[in-house]
Amino acid sequence: MKAGPSQDEVRQQNLGALLRHVHFDGPTSRAVLATRLGLNRSTILGLVGDLTAAGLVREELPQETGRAGRPSLVVRPESTRVHVLAVDLGVERLATALIGLGGVFLDRRECPWPDGHPQDPAQVAAILAGFAQEMLARAPDGSSCVGVAVAVRGIVRHPDGLVSLTPNMGWKGVDFAGAFAARLPLDVPVLVANEANLGALAEHRRGIGRGSQNLVYLHGEIGIGAGVITDGELLRGERGYAGEIGHMNVNPYQGRPCGCGAHGCLEAEAGERALLEAAGRDGRLTGADAVRSVVTAADRGDVSARAALHRVGDWLGIGIANLVNLFDPDLVILGGTLRDVFLGSAAQVRSRINTNALAAVREHLRLRVSELGDDTVLIGAAELAFSELLTRPLETLTRS
Amino acid sequence: MKAGPSQDEVRQQNLGALLRHVHFDGPTSRAVLATRLGLNRSTILGLVGDLTAAGLVREELPQETGRAGRPSLVVRPESTRVHVLAVDLGVERLATALIGLGGVFLDRRECPWPDGHPQDPAQVAAILAGFAQEMLARAPDGSSCVGVAVAVRGIVRHPDGLVSLTPNMGWKGVDFAGAFAARLPLDVPVLVANEANLGALAEHRRGIGRGSQNLVYLHGEIGIGAGVITDGELLRGERGYAGEIGHMNVNPYQGRPCGCGAHGCLEAEAGERALLEAAGRDGRLTGADAVRSVVTAADRGDVSARAALHRVGDWLGIGIANLVNLFDPDLVILGGTLRDVFLGSAAQVRSRINTNALAAVREHLRLRVSELGDDTVLIGAAELAFSELLTRPLETLTRS
Repeated sequence: MKAGPSQDEVRQQNLGALLRHVHFDGPTSRAVLATRLGLNRSTILGLVGDLTAAGLVREELPQETGRAGRPSLVVRPESTRVHVLAVDLGVERLATALIGLGGVFLDRRECPWPDGHPQDPAQVAAILAGFAQEMLARAPDGSSCVGVAVAVRGIVRHPDGLVSLTPNMGWKGVDFAGAFAARLPLDVPVLVANEANLGALAEHRRGIGRGSQNLVYLHGEIGIGAGVITDGELLRGERGYAGEIGHMNVNPYQGRPCGCGAHGCLEAEAGERALLEAAGRDGRLTGADAVRSVVTAADRGDVSARAALHRVGDWLGIGIANLVNLFDPDLVILGGTLRDVFLGSAAQVRSRINTNALAAVREHLRLRVSELGDDTVLIGAAELAFSELLTRPLETLTRS
Repeated sequence: MKAGPSQDEVRQQNLGALLRHVHFDGPTSRAVLATRLGLNRSTILGLVGDLTAAGLVREELPQETGRAGRPSLVVRPESTRVHVLAVDLGVERLATALIGLGGVFLDRRECPWPDGHPQDPAQVAAILAGFAQEMLARAPDGSSCVGVAVAVRGIVRHPDGLVSLTPNMGWKGVDFAGAFAARLPLDVPVLVANEANLGALAEHRRGIGRGSQNLVYLHGEIGIGAGVITDGELLRGERGYAGEIGHMNVNPYQGRPCGCGAHGCLEAEAGERALLEAAGRDGRLTGADAVRSVVTAADRGDVSARAALHRVGDWLGIGIANLVNLFDPDLVILGGTLRDVFLGSAAQVRSRINTNALAAVREHLRLRVSELGDDTVLIGAAELAFSELLTRPLETLTRS
């Protein structure tokens, strides 16, 4: 029952729309911005003026036009003056990067996880804060950090970012945002989100999902998570827990046991452990290298590796078909180690989708692997950290 | 990258917001409207004036206030002057109603399906158009029909409403909207949508789902469908096919055969046929009475009826747990014959959800049966038919 926006709100919306355009699409002339945003040229002039005065964009000659004559100025994001801090608490490493407006990696640091089980959130926060301080100290004078976001393998409450549960780190009800913020020399909000949701955001804004309004991103590591974009927006659900596809049960009576206590969850049937065990390997030695070695062995004709990929591909196809019937996406993207699993089992995955997904729903479906590779989640964290600036540019910058 | 709205668009949004408020919440004073919509009193005065002049609302003394002193005028929807035509192509009957602004049933007609398999869309359209003409002829002089919507048991493409597939009627690629519109004495769009999506809309706007922003409505008849509300909006997916939960596969290797060609779809394990067959009855004689008779028999202690409800309740719980893990709703509503099935198997359903849904996700979950009963889908069709008017009141009325 929300009423329409005030004139002030409309101006903020327009500033956000223009800034998002150059952030995602890169340098753009004022004339093109006017057409794309459906605003007249004098409005665009005013908006560009405000964003320039705030230090968010600048106008300059394009680098190369390939055309004769004097080229038009283009509006470009101030990548070296405005940045965010993105953090990925991965399964195998802690990674962090300073990423400039427009999505430019300015600096990055990473390390393996420290020893200790369950890992101490304060210790993790201290290591990452050390990286952040190094990178911020090297950032140009006068540049601003406008947001911080952290990707977590686990269940994260929205909007406060409480880490409800991370099976592999043993965290339960941890305020990692608070622990990290307390150690940072910054006065901006620290956001925390689930890795598959951030992967979906990254692929939707900067990867193979650009232009799609309805996609599912599947992220595989030890577990399997999904991030779902519906009608252009990230599906969050009531408390931010949507997308727990790893615990979609597909084999309740005969299924393999899952870490959650149930039997036959998708990640129990199609996760890294299931693949490695089906291939006769040690299921405890999960990770990208272990998964790749099964795919490579299958390529070379190893019978048990082939059978394992066939089996896991079948369950993966069952899971994807269910998602297709439920979400009607036009695109399903496989990321993390599911990228390799899919490349080694695509025929089986597709065959199962053809059996299980309704014809009308699967008709225009595209199945693709992640384009952004190992940085998908980190890029998604940066996009989350930028989201406030991209919605209310001037207010956000004033606060940071 | 959409820019903010123009002043004209803001005015339309405000008119829509005010009209939606009185449509859903009933007669409301101008002072309360100002508070609820966050607009000042002079803006409200202008909006009420425009809507009154258009014949969409009127101001009058409230019927009973229970308070001393002169009561304030209230703004109420013109239920007898502005209406829609709602149609439900149910499994057992064709139903149609004239429903006034504010959700008032003004008139209704229904009949069993005509003989003939596959049912002829033109014949069905002709019967319903006959009902419509009778009801429209009895509507007050000067009243307007502003929209028509039809609920279909099947897969319906959005936004054009093409009926891609209706398993029980045998329709495939049928333009029922066109066939019906051609026989109606009306110049308004005819919308077609899936029954579970309309059930979700009805419960969200007028039933037990009021106030919830993230709910799943499960509709059971011969098949099982779902309508999902996420962040206050109906989930449609890329082509309108989202919510095909009946074909979410939960038992691919040992499952019962499904009409779609796969094995172990949720509707094959938990649909009416599965219940009746598990109870030792004729699985072809589906329908509300047959389902109720199993529930009644179980209440009286019939062992096979109890075992059947236990079995079907277990699969239903598995299906609901999957939806809970995927959508993180705060409310799951069971409608159609799943209402009776759930009342007869609630303990089993809840027990399975407790095993299969993640603790954080199920923690605040409420499971409820539909409040709107047999009219849920018809009410949802009416809300769909009103949606254009409630978004752009004056433009829509001018056209109708």
